[in-house]
Amino acid sequence: MRAVTFQAPMEVRVDERPEPELEGRDDAVVSIEASGICGSDLHIYHGRVKIERGFTLGHEFVGTVLAAGEDVRRVAVGDRVLGCFHSACGSCFFCLRGAYHKCERMRVFGHGEALGALPGTQAEQALVPMANMTLRKVPEGVSDDVALFAGDVMGTAYHAISQATVGPGDSVAVLGLGPVGLCAVQIAIAAGAAPVVAIDTVAQRLEAARRFGATAVHLTEESPRDVVRELTGGRGVDAAIDAVGHPDALGLAIRVARNAGSVVAIGVYAEPCEVHMGLVWIKALTLKSGQANVIAHVDRVLGMLAAGSLDPTPLVTHHMPLADAAEAYRVYDRREALKIVLRP
Amino acid sequence: MRAVTFQAPMEVRVDERPEPELEGRDDAVVSIEASGICGSDLHIYHGRVKIERGFTLGHEFVGTVLAAGEDVRRVAVGDRVLGCFHSACGSCFFCLRGAYHKCERMRVFGHGEALGALPGTQAEQALVPMANMTLRKVPEGVSDDVALFAGDVMGTAYHAISQATVGPGDSVAVLGLGPVGLCAVQIAIAAGAAPVVAIDTVAQRLEAARRFGATAVHLTEESPRDVVRELTGGRGVDAAIDAVGHPDALGLAIRVARNAGSVVAIGVYAEPCEVHMGLVWIKALTLKSGQANVIAHVDRVLGMLAAGSLDPTPLVTHHMPLADAAEAYRVYDRREALKIVLRP
Amino acid sequence: MRAVTFQAPMEVRVDERPEPELEGRDDAVVSIEASGICGSDLHIYHGRVKIERGFTLGHEFVGTVLAAGEDVRRVAVGDRVLGCFHSACGSCFFCLRGAYHKCERMRVFGHGEALGALPGTQAEQALVPMANMTLRKVPEGVSDDVALFAGDVMGTAYHAISQATVGPGDSVAVLGLGPVGLCAVQIAIAAGAAPVVAIDTVAQRLEAARRFGATAVHLTEESPRDVVRELTGGRGVDAAIDAVGHPDALGLAIRVARNAGSVVAIGVYAEPCEVHMGLVWIKALTLKSGQANVIAHVDRVLGMLAAGSLDPTPLVTHHMPLADAAEAYRVYDRREALKIVLRP
Amino acid sequence: MRAVTFQAPMEVRVDERPEPELEGRDDAVVSIEASGICGSDLHIYHGRVKIERGFTLGHEFVGTVLAAGEDVRRVAVGDRVLGCFHSACGSCFFCLRGAYHKCERMRVFGHGEALGALPGTQAEQALVPMANMTLRKVPEGVSDDVALFAGDVMGTAYHAISQATVGPGDSVAVLGLGPVGLCAVQIAIAAGAAPVVAIDTVAQRLEAARRFGATAVHLTEESPRDVVRELTGGRGVDAAIDAVGHPDALGLAIRVARNAGSVVAIGVYAEPCEVHMGLVWIKALTLKSGQANVIAHVDRVLGMLAAGSLDPTPLVTHHMPLADAAEAYRVYDRREALKIVLRP
Repeated sequence: MRAVTFQAPMEVRVDERPEPELEGRDDAVVSIEASGICGSDLHIYHGRVKIERGFTLGHEFVGTVLAAGEDVRRVAVGDRVLGCFHSACGSCFFCLRGAYHKCERMRVFGHGEALGALPGTQAEQALVPMANMTLRKVPEGVSDDVALFAGDVMGTAYHAISQATVGPGDSVAVLGLGPVGLCAVQIAIAAGAAPVVAIDTVAQRLEAARRFGATAVHLTEESPRDVVRELTGGRGVDAAIDAVGHPDALGLAIRVARNAGSVVAIGVYAEPCEVHMGLVWIKALTLKSGQANVIAHVDRVLGMLAAGSLDPTPLVTHHMPLADAAEAYRVYDRREALKIVLRP
Repeated sequence: MRAVTFQAPMEVRVDERPEPELEGRDDAVVSIEASGICGSDLHIYHGRVKIERGFTLGHEFVGTVLAAGEDVRRVAVGDRVLGCFHSACGSCFFCLRGAYHKCERMRVFGHGEALGALPGTQAEQALVPMANMTLRKVPEGVSDDVALFAGDVMGTAYHAISQATVGPGDSVAVLGLGPVGLCAVQIAIAAGAAPVVAIDTVAQRLEAARRFGATAVHLTEESPRDVVRELTGGRGVDAAIDAVGHPDALGLAIRVARNAGSVVAIGVYAEPCEVHMGLVWIKALTLKSGQANVIAHVDRVLGMLAAGSLDPTPLVTHHMPLADAAEAYRVYDRREALKIVLRP
Repeated sequence: MRAVTFQAPMEVRVDERPEPELEGRDDAVVSIEASGICGSDLHIYHGRVKIERGFTLGHEFVGTVLAAGEDVRRVAVGDRVLGCFHSACGSCFFCLRGAYHKCERMRVFGHGEALGALPGTQAEQALVPMANMTLRKVPEGVSDDVALFAGDVMGTAYHAISQATVGPGDSVAVLGLGPVGLCAVQIAIAAGAAPVVAIDTVAQRLEAARRFGATAVHLTEESPRDVVRELTGGRGVDAAIDAVGHPDALGLAIRVARNAGSVVAIGVYAEPCEVHMGLVWIKALTLKSGQANVIAHVDRVLGMLAAGSLDPTPLVTHHMPLADAAEAYRVYDRREALKIVLRP
Repeated sequence: MRAVTFQAPMEVRVDERPEPELEGRDDAVVSIEASGICGSDLHIYHGRVKIERGFTLGHEFVGTVLAAGEDVRRVAVGDRVLGCFHSACGSCFFCLRGAYHKCERMRVFGHGEALGALPGTQAEQALVPMANMTLRKVPEGVSDDVALFAGDVMGTAYHAISQATVGPGDSVAVLGLGPVGLCAVQIAIAAGAAPVVAIDTVAQRLEAARRFGATAVHLTEESPRDVVRELTGGRGVDAAIDAVGHPDALGLAIRVARNAGSVVAIGVYAEPCEVHMGLVWIKALTLKSGQANVIAHVDRVLGMLAAGSLDPTPLVTHHMPLADAAEAYRVYDRREALKIVLRP
């Protein structure tokens, strides 16, 4: 079968790979019908995240179950399914506390030997371990493009809003309107947050946030702090989401959050950086960070996608054949796309 | 000034009463512009809840501040305000735990000597104690009809959904589509619940729930349990709201809730009754009950009303002059109205 | 091997049974060294809970792993282990929400075909399914008698206190001082609750509670409501635990709980019964019920047992050989024992 | 009356000041019988926190009510009382959310004009505003030395443990064994945490922690990370408390916390500093910081002090007369004392 493989920084190509076979009794093999390119793929593409040469990329997918081990119960051969970006065992210390994103035996699709040696899903087929945890049926009426988001981008956005413990009527600011940020805007609004302030520098992303119902604020041409102050009686937002993963975004999130509010840094951090702990202390903030716990959220996200209260369709800017993956990565790298869906 | 007073069961009338004057330094006097008739007024009207002859009724109100004590900070003379249905002290054991609805010094408007001897708001003016707790400015663009709901009916519905700890994507059933039930439907949907099942016997209330986005189910012509089962993969809803206050409603709520789910009995209970504790136990349910903690929720409710994510306008079926209060109570008693707004 | 089997109401006997063999890859076989007799066994003994004639009883156990499937990771052959009273799959809807006690595929030891057809542990050996969920190593220095409690009685008590959301300094009342009630007293005190009021009619149980640090109150010779009132400034306790499973106990729990407090009915209910919903409503109580989620708590319980902050040793009143099981059940049925430990 | 006043960095003196008089109707005047010197006083003493020359210092106190405004209900003239270190209004946005430490009208004793112009309590008398929030009766049998801790040091420690959402059986590390750190050790143990690891460099503080039941670890002569790893199956603690307020302590707290665990920085931060956000992200930590919300905790802390489950007596190393305040500050500054109690 064909699969998109990492060759070297800035170089991916479509290779032949053997078709996957069931290994464990809770494994499934899925015929991939759509697989997304994601910001984390770009980290690999740029060489910042190291993986082995020739490793298959991709971790967002929708497809049909080709084969299932005897312990697989949630899905069956022939089912149209979507996957979470990683698997979890369900019985370790962390899984027993619901922290599936910290499972001791977690494996991440398309992230090399270090994260479980699990070939990616930008391919014609994929092996899916622990399928009862990792796979869900696509609800009727939900398209590939929409379902694709449940197990990664929308699940991550749900996680951010859920970590922020935002209730109906609470105010939220989202900093950074890439796919995760825009999805966080959608979820905040769908969860009854009001007002929702969306901050970025790209006009078209601000426009998307506005259409979703947010108050869009240009990071540099306007003053996010002034807008937030005006909309919140001078206090700041109940929760600020850093969907960027940069100290400047975190710094602004800390500034626009109200006293005793919360800040969720859902963007990726890999290094130490300066944080204004003086402000964190004087404001008595709660700061949460980390990769998203999508397995904990995927059922609820699917429910909302099926009900239409979330709809990421506008974020899918490109559909491309799997064969054009190299070009797709170049387009994505040039930031010309929000979400590219590859079809084998 | 004129005020609607209780005379005897099934008899209210408009009387002359002295204009209220400030007593405490945190009191305000409000010129009433709109006051609702509520289900609790009906309990008094029917004589089930006893109050003194001649006591002024009413506890939902919008108006303008005429006078304010020196400690009143949240509102000022001339402000257009709405009120919560009761006051709270802010410093007793219960207030310090956020349980304003159980304040040791709480006073309820229009409920007689037993609940604080605080004359009601179906009058031209009302004395509002502890105004920093009890009053809020009406946000710009919010009508009297809408604002009126924040401090009682919508606040009660918010409380129900909040007690149910419903998150985005959770499933909810609301039993009983009076004003509180219909508002609970609105809030559940605004909070991202999906699906939301609304159960009643009155076609027009079911139709209202359907327009708000719920799956409407006739209690006797359809099978609520079957519908819930079908919509929830056979499991039952994450949260069931009894907005009736009757053992049958509670019983059905317990039956349609999923294992380890929650049931909120927001309808009024005054007596012992049979509860299927065997089911509560085998399902491992959480059951919460009690009057609503509207002071805890009023700011968030107002935010949502201002943002338009909640809109109780369709529930206001009648506007009548204060002078016609006796007729208004008769109309309400005949269940011809969902919400009647009286205007002095 | 020998095993204690149910024959008929009031009749158990020690039978020969085939030694268990591994079935699934996550199964283990445990050589039983100690197995308790529990209140739930008595329900079966009395015929109130129906199970098949000849079915092996028992669900509390400590032993040594004799064999383990290839997917068993938490324990290994030769490990000294204790078990939870039921298994859970880790990946169903309920397990994913941490509600292991409502697992769709849960199997309960020694409870007949209806609850999973899993032979009990009052035997020389037992098959343990889903061993990663069900088994834990016994921490060094913890005796059989103590370890035995972790997976059932103490786990149930932990569940009750945890459901009550009792924090350090909160007041608690425990109604019914059987093994679960006495353990709940211990956990409440170990969790920093103060005061802890323990209510029963049996002098020796009251004395045990007193030694654990509680204020012991005789149900009928003293007035529990007066004692609670005096210790809580007239308000009632923050949390009341019904460890009996009888409407009278639940009624008293509701009465001694403070406004906006919580009641946990951890005792078993099987039928509808009268509940004073009027009081539940006026007090704005939270009522939780159901079997305990011991898999969620077992690690923390073991930590406390190992640290010595919990010590159920005083509750073990009898050690008897497995061969004398029939006599042991008679002793237990006559309420002459708090906990009987059977040794093969 | 005599009062300890700030004169210049490193210089305090006992001055004559006019006796306070009631101003508001919820004020009280307290005759001070004991007042502590606290780490925050040292910040002022060193000139790092600026206050006006001549301002009266101190914010920990026990005494007797001399006068009370007509709205004061919780305490009466003649009552022996203790105070929280600040007042709160009970009705602002933050108080309504239970964030009394962020009250919009909060006043802090002895911290100059900027924090509410409220003279301190190292004096013969003190004016106490909003006495229903700020004062509590000293429970019978609780000494001055013990009661003094409830409204500041022990309340702060309670806050730290409460923010860490530590439950019975969870593991905790406390970094820095000053008074707050040692009290946090006590509360963690009283709340059932196990194990509790206490880290410092001072032998006598480590010894105190050991006597309270902690595993004491020398910061540099031992390896805190190794000890934590060994005690927690290699995972790290569920919650790590930085009771120092220094980036190194925060860094170690982040390192010893387990994945998906929590870090509470209760020590004071005033500046930006480097935080290893990469670790915070990869570990998916929750980080909380800020001054303590003692008004929210004081009742529970008093309950535990009265029950004897907390006992800060060993932390009081010095009693000195108010007249010797200058010497007392010098002793405290030389770190020769853990807690100095001044008596007028």
